[in-house]
Amino acid sequence: MLKEAYPEALGRLILAFAKLPGIGPKTAQRLAFYLTKSKGEDLEELLAALQGIKNIGFCSICGFYSEHEVCRICEDTERDREVICVVERPQDIIALEKAGFRGVYHVLQGVLSPLLGIGPDDLRIKELLQRVAQGGAREVILAINPSVDGEATALFIAEKLRDFPVKVTLIARGLPSGGDLEFADEVTLSQALEGRRELRKEVF
Amino acid sequence: MLKEAYPEALGRLILAFAKLPGIGPKTAQRLAFYLTKSKGEDLEELLAALQGIKNIGFCSICGFYSEHEVCRICEDTERDREVICVVERPQDIIALEKAGFRGVYHVLQGVLSPLLGIGPDDLRIKELLQRVAQGGAREVILAINPSVDGEATALFIAEKLRDFPVKVTLIARGLPSGGDLEFADEVTLSQALEGRRELRKEVF
Repeated sequence: MLKEAYPEALGRLILAFAKLPGIGPKTAQRLAFYLTKSKGEDLEELLAALQGIKNIGFCSICGFYSEHEVCRICEDTERDREVICVVERPQDIIALEKAGFRGVYHVLQGVLSPLLGIGPDDLRIKELLQRVAQGGAREVILAINPSVDGEATALFIAEKLRDFPVKVTLIARGLPSGGDLEFADEVTLSQALEGRRELRKEVF
Repeated sequence: MLKEAYPEALGRLILAFAKLPGIGPKTAQRLAFYLTKSKGEDLEELLAALQGIKNIGFCSICGFYSEHEVCRICEDTERDREVICVVERPQDIIALEKAGFRGVYHVLQGVLSPLLGIGPDDLRIKELLQRVAQGGAREVILAINPSVDGEATALFIAEKLRDFPVKVTLIARGLPSGGDLEFADEVTLSQALEGRRELRKEVF
């Protein structure tokens, strides 16, 4: 009954939006009505932008999204290429960039997961080992999400890198900025205690 | 610094999404990354759907969105065409359809607003009067949003329809279903009191 009420094209757009992650039926409807009403520039911009991403592939070095063989980050000569930060997904790079990291990256495209049948060969671990074997890397920072599978993946990679002359580090676990001791879970809290640092006198 | 990190096309898509109502920068980023990752069918569907809405115009009778001269609702012979429900915007029709209304509609495309300089000629009021003057209407239901401007618009239209042989009604104001007396504002509560109905014995 409902689908019959509005134009087929509008119904189709609502369905297309509702398929996207985090977009519920109400938001999908609002977006579709907005674009149907405004049309013009907003619609053309969105169409052109969507067409544009078709040309995006992966950087042959780090695996981040790129329109060229090598991505903008790997191309940037002002970065410290001796420090490789290993991440799970491309979007993690955006978060690290915002945090001010200025080394280079390596995208795994996932984590090991026996449950989902994802093994070492499904991830870009071999490529990481090759990169390190070629030399030039001083440190590999494992910035994998602190989930059970993430921790296991970090340990697996650390083990594989053991014989290379490279420092392997794991990003710190602890209380997030603005966090509250009262509401922190035990695992976070015990990791925060374990990772405690001595404050030097200059800090006071 | 940030824009340089990801491919230009990806940045453009994030900006295009962020321009849509209710889409913040984080959601825009998530959507853009999702589509860049999945591409294929989801992307093609969205592109086709967006292209599709370019052909949507307005129904010449009620002003709802339509791909043809007359919309699906006005074409539907099973509806009660003698009851015209007047609404502010096309999306209000969807809400009323869901609520089970089976008459026809008339979209005003806004409400009177002295502040924004919107007068009777900017709305589809003349078209409504013509429709009623042509005869065939038994009742005009004013289902305009209960804002200050909405109430004024409803009164204005009721006044204009005074001399036509048609019943003019206003949708009820009162406590929304699931609402709570304790947290209802005074205006809603006084309207709910004013609109009280006697319960017939059959109901018990």
